[in-house]
Amino acid sequence: MGEGPGHDALGAIFFLTDYGQEDELAGVVRAVLSRLAPGAPVVDLTHEIPAFDVRAGALALERAAPHLGPGVVLGVVDPGVGTTRRAVALELSDGPGPRALVGPDNGLLMRAADALSPVRGAVALAPVPGEGHVTFDGRDVFAPAAAALWRGEPIRSLGEPVSPEDLVRLPAPQLRHVAGGIEAEVLWIDRFGNVQLAAGAGAGRDAGFETGAALTVGAAGADHPARFVRAFGDLESDGQPADLGVLVDANGRLAVVCARRSAATVLGVRPGDLVRVERPAS
Amino acid sequence: MGEGPGHDALGAIFFLTDYGQEDELAGVVRAVLSRLAPGAPVVDLTHEIPAFDVRAGALALERAAPHLGPGVVLGVVDPGVGTTRRAVALELSDGPGPRALVGPDNGLLMRAADALSPVRGAVALAPVPGEGHVTFDGRDVFAPAAAALWRGEPIRSLGEPVSPEDLVRLPAPQLRHVAGGIEAEVLWIDRFGNVQLAAGAGAGRDAGFETGAALTVGAAGADHPARFVRAFGDLESDGQPADLGVLVDANGRLAVVCARRSAATVLGVRPGDLVRVERPAS
Amino acid sequence: MGEGPGHDALGAIFFLTDYGQEDELAGVVRAVLSRLAPGAPVVDLTHEIPAFDVRAGALALERAAPHLGPGVVLGVVDPGVGTTRRAVALELSDGPGPRALVGPDNGLLMRAADALSPVRGAVALAPVPGEGHVTFDGRDVFAPAAAALWRGEPIRSLGEPVSPEDLVRLPAPQLRHVAGGIEAEVLWIDRFGNVQLAAGAGAGRDAGFETGAALTVGAAGADHPARFVRAFGDLESDGQPADLGVLVDANGRLAVVCARRSAATVLGVRPGDLVRVERPAS
Repeated sequence: MGEGPGHDALGAIFFLTDYGQEDELAGVVRAVLSRLAPGAPVVDLTHEIPAFDVRAGALALERAAPHLGPGVVLGVVDPGVGTTRRAVALELSDGPGPRALVGPDNGLLMRAADALSPVRGAVALAPVPGEGHVTFDGRDVFAPAAAALWRGEPIRSLGEPVSPEDLVRLPAPQLRHVAGGIEAEVLWIDRFGNVQLAAGAGAGRDAGFETGAALTVGAAGADHPARFVRAFGDLESDGQPADLGVLVDANGRLAVVCARRSAATVLGVRPGDLVRVERPAS
Repeated sequence: MGEGPGHDALGAIFFLTDYGQEDELAGVVRAVLSRLAPGAPVVDLTHEIPAFDVRAGALALERAAPHLGPGVVLGVVDPGVGTTRRAVALELSDGPGPRALVGPDNGLLMRAADALSPVRGAVALAPVPGEGHVTFDGRDVFAPAAAALWRGEPIRSLGEPVSPEDLVRLPAPQLRHVAGGIEAEVLWIDRFGNVQLAAGAGAGRDAGFETGAALTVGAAGADHPARFVRAFGDLESDGQPADLGVLVDANGRLAVVCARRSAATVLGVRPGDLVRVERPAS
Repeated sequence: MGEGPGHDALGAIFFLTDYGQEDELAGVVRAVLSRLAPGAPVVDLTHEIPAFDVRAGALALERAAPHLGPGVVLGVVDPGVGTTRRAVALELSDGPGPRALVGPDNGLLMRAADALSPVRGAVALAPVPGEGHVTFDGRDVFAPAAAALWRGEPIRSLGEPVSPEDLVRLPAPQLRHVAGGIEAEVLWIDRFGNVQLAAGAGAGRDAGFETGAALTVGAAGADHPARFVRAFGDLESDGQPADLGVLVDANGRLAVVCARRSAATVLGVRPGDLVRVERPAS
C-alpha cells in the first residue's frame, strides 16, 4: 500500500489509555495500528490516566477534543474488560475534528463526543472470535477497529448498530450556584497542582466575579482568601499566606491556582471534592 | 528523499530500551532515526525496562513480537556497553513480521527472534571508528544500523558475519510438571500486578486444569486457594479472602490474577520467583 | 494537503517540554502539530524536564542538538508563562540541523542554537488575540508557530523582529582551572547517576589527565580516589571503596562515573554543585 495523497486527509489516530508506560502495552497497540493502518500518524494523548479511572480519562479526552484535527480517537480505560460491557465505535456528524471514536461503552468517550459533534451512528464491536482465554481488547478489538475506521471502512462493517441514546454516560459533574458564588466539583488537578472546577467562565461571570476582586475559596472545611485574576503572572509568588488565585484556565474553566505552588495541596482537595468560590459578604 | 510508494512497504522501526523517559536519551535516538531514515515510522514499544534488566527486555520483546508488522526491531538494554560484548544485527527468514533486529548480543533479541522467524544471517556491527571516549551505542551504533536496514541496505554492509549459533541466549525460564500441576518461574508482573508464569496454555491443559475448578497456588512458602477461570470478569472482586484466579492471559500464558488487586502483592512474588499451581489433593 | 516529495525534506519537529506525561498536555500539543502541520514527524526529545527548570531544559536541548536533522525545534519550559516574557522564534543560518527554534525567550533555546548555527533572525511571536483568560502557550502560541515554520512559512510572518543580541541567555556554567586539574559545575546527572561536568575533553587534556592515571575527585567537602578511564568497562564493579572513574562522556564532556552505581550518590552532588578533579600532588 503506497502513501498517496489521501494520507494526510485521513488525519491521525489519537490514542489515550491508562496503560502507563512501564510495560509494552501501549507500544504493542501502536504496533498493531502501524500494521493495520500503515502510514497513520499515531498521536499519543496520554497513557497515564490513573488505572481504571474512567472519569479522569473522559475528562482528559474532553479537554483535548477541541484541539484534535481529522482522524479517529482510540480511548481505552476499561475496568470492565472481560465482562459484558460493550466495546463500541461511534461515528460523528461532520465537523473539523475526529470523525469516529473507539473504546469501551462506559462513558469514556461521550464527553469528548459531545464536545465535538453529534453522534450519528454507533456499533457494538464484534468480540474476538471463539477464544477460550483472556483478550487484550486494546490490541485485539479496539486497535483493529480504529485502524479500519482510519482507513475509511464503514462503521457498519465493524459490528451491530447500537442506538446512540443507549450509550453509557457518566453523571454530570456537580455545579450549583450559591449566594455570591458557586460550589463546584473538582474535575482535575494538573501536575502543577492547579485545581480545575466543573464551572465555566460563564458561571464566574454570572456570579459577579470581576478581575482583581477578592474571593473566598472554601474547601475541606476551611476558607481561604483569593483573588480573581486573569493570569498566573498576576499572583505574587511571595505572598503570605499562600497567594491563591481563581482564573479562567486554558480549557475555559474556573480554576484555583497558586503562584508556583500546588493549590491542591493548599486547599487539601482531590478530584471529585467540592470547592466553593464566593465573593466575601460585604 | 521523497516519500514514495515504498515507505509503507518498508514498515516501521520498533524501539525498546531501558533508557527511561526522564532524560533525552530515547529522544536523541529517535532524532537519529528521523535523520538517517527519513519517513520511517518509529513505534516506541517501551523505554521503561528496568535499567540493565536484559531478561525483562527480552521478555517484553517476545510478548510484542507476534503483533509487529514489517520493519526493524531496535532493542537496547545493554549493561555490557563499553565492554567487549558484541553489537549485532540479525536478519530473519521471510515472515509477516520484522525482517531484522538490532541490539547488543546479550540475549535481548533472541527470544523475539525465535518467536518470529529463523535467523538467516547475523553480523557484528562495526564499532564507531577511533574515538578515545565513551560512545552512546544506541545513538552511535545501533540507530544508524537500524536506519540502514530500514532503508533496505544489505545486512552484510554493516559488519562481519557471525554464526547465528554463536549468538548469546538467555537460559530458558524454569517450568516443571509436578503431581497435578506445574511449578514455573514468574516471567513478568504487569502494572496491575498480574503474575505471568513461564507456562503456556498447553501446560495447564496437560495438568488437567479445567474452567471453574479449584486450584492451589503456592508461592513464597504459603498456599492460596484459587480457581481456574477464563476471564477477569469471572472473579469476585469482593471475595474473602483475596479471590485469586489462574487464567490463560493475553499472551497465551498461565497467569495468577486477582480481581482489581495485585496478585503479585497477595502472593509476595517477583519476576524470577517460583510459583506452584496444582489441583488440590482429592 | 497531499504528502508530496517535500515532506521528508521539511524534516521533523523536535519537541521538548517540562509537561510530564501524566496529563494530556504534551499530547494536545502533538495533536495541534498534527492538525496544523499534517505529515510532520514529531520527535519527542523528552517531556520530563523538571518543572520550570529552564537550565535543565537548555542543557538537554544542547546535548541533543548535534544529533538533530532538518526541521524545527519546539521547546517549552516556561516558568514565566503569563508574564511579560517574550515568546520567540529563531531562524538559524544554513546548516545540517534544524532551521528554526520556537519557545520562550528565557534562555531555553540559546545553548542549542549556539551548538547548531548562528541565529540570523528572530521574532517575538504575536500573542493569542484578545483573550481574557489564561492561555496554554505551548498549544496556542508555540505549536502553531512551529507548525508554520515547518510548513515553510517565513519567520517574519509570525511576529515583530527582535535583535538576536537581545535574546535572553543563561549564565555560562562555572569552569576554572586549578593546580593540576579543574573545578567545574555539575551540568547533569543522568538516570544512571553519571555526573556530567561543565568541562570538555580539552579541559581534561589541558589539565594533564591521562588514561589510567590516578585522580582525586573533590565534592561536598570530601575527596575520593578515581582514575581517568576511556570507558565504563575499564572500571571494576567490585572495587573497594567505590571505584570512581572520570571519562570523556558521549557528549564529549568530562563525567564522574561509577561502575553500575550512582556516582552522584557516592559524591553527594546535584546539578549546579561544584566538583574538583585533579591529579594527586606528587
